[in-house]
Amino acid sequence: MRWQDLETETCSVARTLSVIGDRWTPLILRECFFGNTRFDAFEKRLGIPRRVLSDRLKMLVEKGVLRREPYQGHARRFDYLLTERGRDLRPILLTMIAWGDKHMPMAGGPPRRVRHLDCGAVMTPVLHCSACGGAITADNVTTEANDSAAA
Amino acid sequence: MRWQDLETETCSVARTLSVIGDRWTPLILRECFFGNTRFDAFEKRLGIPRRVLSDRLKMLVEKGVLRREPYQGHARRFDYLLTERGRDLRPILLTMIAWGDKHMPMAGGPPRRVRHLDCGAVMTPVLHCSACGGAITADNVTTEANDSAAA
Repeated sequence: MRWQDLETETCSVARTLSVIGDRWTPLILRECFFGNTRFDAFEKRLGIPRRVLSDRLKMLVEKGVLRREPYQGHARRFDYLLTERGRDLRPILLTMIAWGDKHMPMAGGPPRRVRHLDCGAVMTPVLHCSACGGAITADNVTTEANDSAAA
Repeated sequence: MRWQDLETETCSVARTLSVIGDRWTPLILRECFFGNTRFDAFEKRLGIPRRVLSDRLKMLVEKGVLRREPYQGHARRFDYLLTERGRDLRPILLTMIAWGDKHMPMAGGPPRRVRHLDCGAVMTPVLHCSACGGAITADNVTTEANDSAAA
C-alpha cells in the first residue's frame, strides 16, 4: 500500500486516514471545533510550521472538510470554516478525547470537559448501535467483509 | 508544540495522537481487531516496510496498547495481542469507519459491515451521551476548559 493510494483503498479506516492520517490534522480540526478560523490563530496556538499549516489547510479545503472565505477588507486573507463533511469528523475527535481521558489521564482531571447541550451534563460520549440502541463494547461488535462492495 | 511532547500536552486529542497519530498505526490496529497477531501477517497484509512495522509494534508494546507473547516453539517470535487499553481504541476506529463509509463511499457499498452481536444487526455506531442517553450531533455538544486540571 502506498500513501498516495490510501484514499482509494478498500477500507474505510484507510480512506479516512487519507484525510486525517497525520498528527497535525486532528489538532487543526480541534482548533476549528474550538471556533478558530484563521491561519495566524492556528499557527500561534499549535506552534505548527507555516509551510506545514499551509499545506494541511490546502489539503483540507481540497478534501471538502474546510471551506475558505475571504474576510472583510482582505482580498487574500481567509476564514477556514468547517463544512458538513468536516463537522462529521467530530465523533472521531470525541472518541479520541474519551480514550485520552481514560488511558492517559492528567493530574486534576481531564483538560477539557465535554458537555451535552441537550441535557446540560458534562458527559463521556459512548457508542451505541444504530439498530437497537444498545451499548457497543469491545466484545459485542465485529466487522465482516461486504462481498457486494467493489474491490 | 514538539512531537515528542505530544503525550504530555494538556489535550486528550494530542495525548491520543501520541499513540495513534500516524497513518500506519490505525491500520496495524485494524489488523489486530481482525484477529491478526503476527509480524509476517501485518507485513503481508499492509505492505508496510519491515523497519517501520518493527518500530510501530515496539512503540505499541511500550505504550501498553499491545502485549507480546512468544509463540510455541519459537523463542524469538511473538504474537502481538491487544491489551484492554488497546481494545478501548476500537471506538476510534469504528467512528473512522462510519465517516469513511459516509463521506468517501465506494461503489457497491461499504467494504466492511459492522455487526452488533447483541442484536445481530448490521449497523452504524453512533455517539450517545453517557448522562441522558440522547444522541450526540454536530450541534449539541461543546467542550470547555476544565480549570481544575493541571496545566
